[in-house]
Amino acid sequence: MPQRIFNFSAGPAVLPVEVLEEARESLLSLGNTGIGILEHSHRGKAFVAVYEETEALCRELAGIPANYKVLFLQGGASSQFFMIPMNLLQQGATADYLVTGAWSQSAVKEAQKFGTVHISCSSEDQNFSYIPGTAEFTPGAAYAHFTSNNTIFGTQFAAPPDYTGDSLIVDASSDIFSRPIDVSRYGMIYAGAQKNLGPAGVTLVIVRDDIIERGPTTLPTMLQYRTHAKNQSMYNTPPTFGIYLMGLVFKWIKKQGGLTAMETINREKALKLYQHLDNSPVFKPTARPDSRSMMNVTFVTGNAELDDKFIKITQKAGLDGLKGHRSVGGMRASIYNAFPSAGVDALIEIMKSFEKEQAL
Amino acid sequence: MPQRIFNFSAGPAVLPVEVLEEARESLLSLGNTGIGILEHSHRGKAFVAVYEETEALCRELAGIPANYKVLFLQGGASSQFFMIPMNLLQQGATADYLVTGAWSQSAVKEAQKFGTVHISCSSEDQNFSYIPGTAEFTPGAAYAHFTSNNTIFGTQFAAPPDYTGDSLIVDASSDIFSRPIDVSRYGMIYAGAQKNLGPAGVTLVIVRDDIIERGPTTLPTMLQYRTHAKNQSMYNTPPTFGIYLMGLVFKWIKKQGGLTAMETINREKALKLYQHLDNSPVFKPTARPDSRSMMNVTFVTGNAELDDKFIKITQKAGLDGLKGHRSVGGMRASIYNAFPSAGVDALIEIMKSFEKEQAL
Repeated sequence: MPQRIFNFSAGPAVLPVEVLEEARESLLSLGNTGIGILEHSHRGKAFVAVYEETEALCRELAGIPANYKVLFLQGGASSQFFMIPMNLLQQGATADYLVTGAWSQSAVKEAQKFGTVHISCSSEDQNFSYIPGTAEFTPGAAYAHFTSNNTIFGTQFAAPPDYTGDSLIVDASSDIFSRPIDVSRYGMIYAGAQKNLGPAGVTLVIVRDDIIERGPTTLPTMLQYRTHAKNQSMYNTPPTFGIYLMGLVFKWIKKQGGLTAMETINREKALKLYQHLDNSPVFKPTARPDSRSMMNVTFVTGNAELDDKFIKITQKAGLDGLKGHRSVGGMRASIYNAFPSAGVDALIEIMKSFEKEQAL
Repeated sequence: MPQRIFNFSAGPAVLPVEVLEEARESLLSLGNTGIGILEHSHRGKAFVAVYEETEALCRELAGIPANYKVLFLQGGASSQFFMIPMNLLQQGATADYLVTGAWSQSAVKEAQKFGTVHISCSSEDQNFSYIPGTAEFTPGAAYAHFTSNNTIFGTQFAAPPDYTGDSLIVDASSDIFSRPIDVSRYGMIYAGAQKNLGPAGVTLVIVRDDIIERGPTTLPTMLQYRTHAKNQSMYNTPPTFGIYLMGLVFKWIKKQGGLTAMETINREKALKLYQHLDNSPVFKPTARPDSRSMMNVTFVTGNAELDDKFIKITQKAGLDGLKGHRSVGGMRASIYNAFPSAGVDALIEIMKSFEKEQAL
């Protein structure tokens, strides 16, 4: 078995080793069934038990009220970008969008195909390096949508926006279950699994019952939330392995102490990295201090050649995925739930050596 | 490791043991990368190599011409049921549908939301127990759609319908790559992976370039075939593990001798089962002989209690998934590519014992 390296990938991203080890055991036989997890019928007892445990753990971890459904869909957050307005933004109506990065912009672009989009706030003026302090909401708008963590730009809402309506929708793809979440504040929470929850190919949707029922019944069956809500996400064959793996991740989160403990661990990892960056003579964090992400730490040297040199050094040392997104340049350390604290320490050590070398 | 049992599930279905064994090795580290297959960025070198090999093997196995794209989508065949008419059936236009089972009916239902559907033929009059010999095509129709194998009813088109236009579309979910396919006869071939190709959560779409371009550019980005075609299925994060596993299955099919060899193996498995059924004093196959599926063999005793008794005996003997769909009743033996011939032999042996017992 080759040694595992520190994987700073923005997503698909690192998963807990014990989750991978358990999944490995299940590939040829799930428990004593004699049938691997990939091969079980989604209608059979063994998989239905997996499904029910996954949903129950999800509800337990996030404290999901009974009037919310938990759905396991396909197509990533990108499919929610159009499914949301297709279901909730009737022609002539307006939806509010808070624009804090590339993914918010993509969500706006899809919503504009269905109705009027009002930009409640935007940080585009400073290359999305901050989270706006206020947002302007439209009275009577169908819903308000925001992106809680901006993977590319390394920013994160410290708290949900100051919205008083009943239809707040959040794309939480890159920080879901990294900290406690008050589900009752939201109409809908959605997240592609491949950062904090599991493998690519399954999207977690937590949605209140009345929101589900707002969508037109004339839409394609697969594009109505009610279809999946009524059928426990098994109207058609669900992504069984992704659901199984998400369940293992939920178990692992519970073992860490749940979402409160995850937040403590995540803050500790991120803060030691930001502390080093704030005091570094070579590296500078790119996000405004009050808007910093606990999941994706973006930083630069201010010199593209020097950035490249540093990235090459990290790669040689077995630290993978640190190259920043082209929109920001420099480096990005994605340190999701499953990313080990030791990996942050390793990165800081390499930065220290690099700083010394630069000082010569 | 618990002993593996014979899994006759209709889908998700049995996969080749050597595929599962290789996947197991990759969960903690893909090759020597030190990062598991689930954790690799879809934009990284390691996964791009997996993707390219999977596509190349797919093209090689099926002899896919250069003017066709191979797409790896999400949402199952059920999502193709609406994506096809959404892209190809403009208002006022007509599409032809051959109705040979429940999945064809679902496809019709979604298409009717977009335009006029003409039923070219139907075998509903005899509970879909046969494939109609002829179909009536509409001159100038947008496309013609059929289901090559009907999982529930145990029927299969022995050859594609006698269609002379350039837009034949086939849902080949349950018999893709079980026999050679002349791709050039089709405008589009699609299949959920979970029967013959891999795990649930990835849909293979083989589509001709001019079909891709027919869809309106005003549709949601994720619902336009051109989006996925232009971006090698990586406009958003693709179901990376599903693509990886499909690649392993393609390698395994190649090792068996390709699609011609698969057909020989599949026919041999199915024919010995049908031969037993045709001579059985207790069991009767339900599909008309000229319409029999090589993938799903449906049969009954004619007595629901006796069916149940037989199913219980098979379960005790370690043969799983033989209960037929409620629309047909009785038994269904799904014997896809990866289902071992020894499992068919085991089933025949149990049938023989049961027949003797019944004769007493």
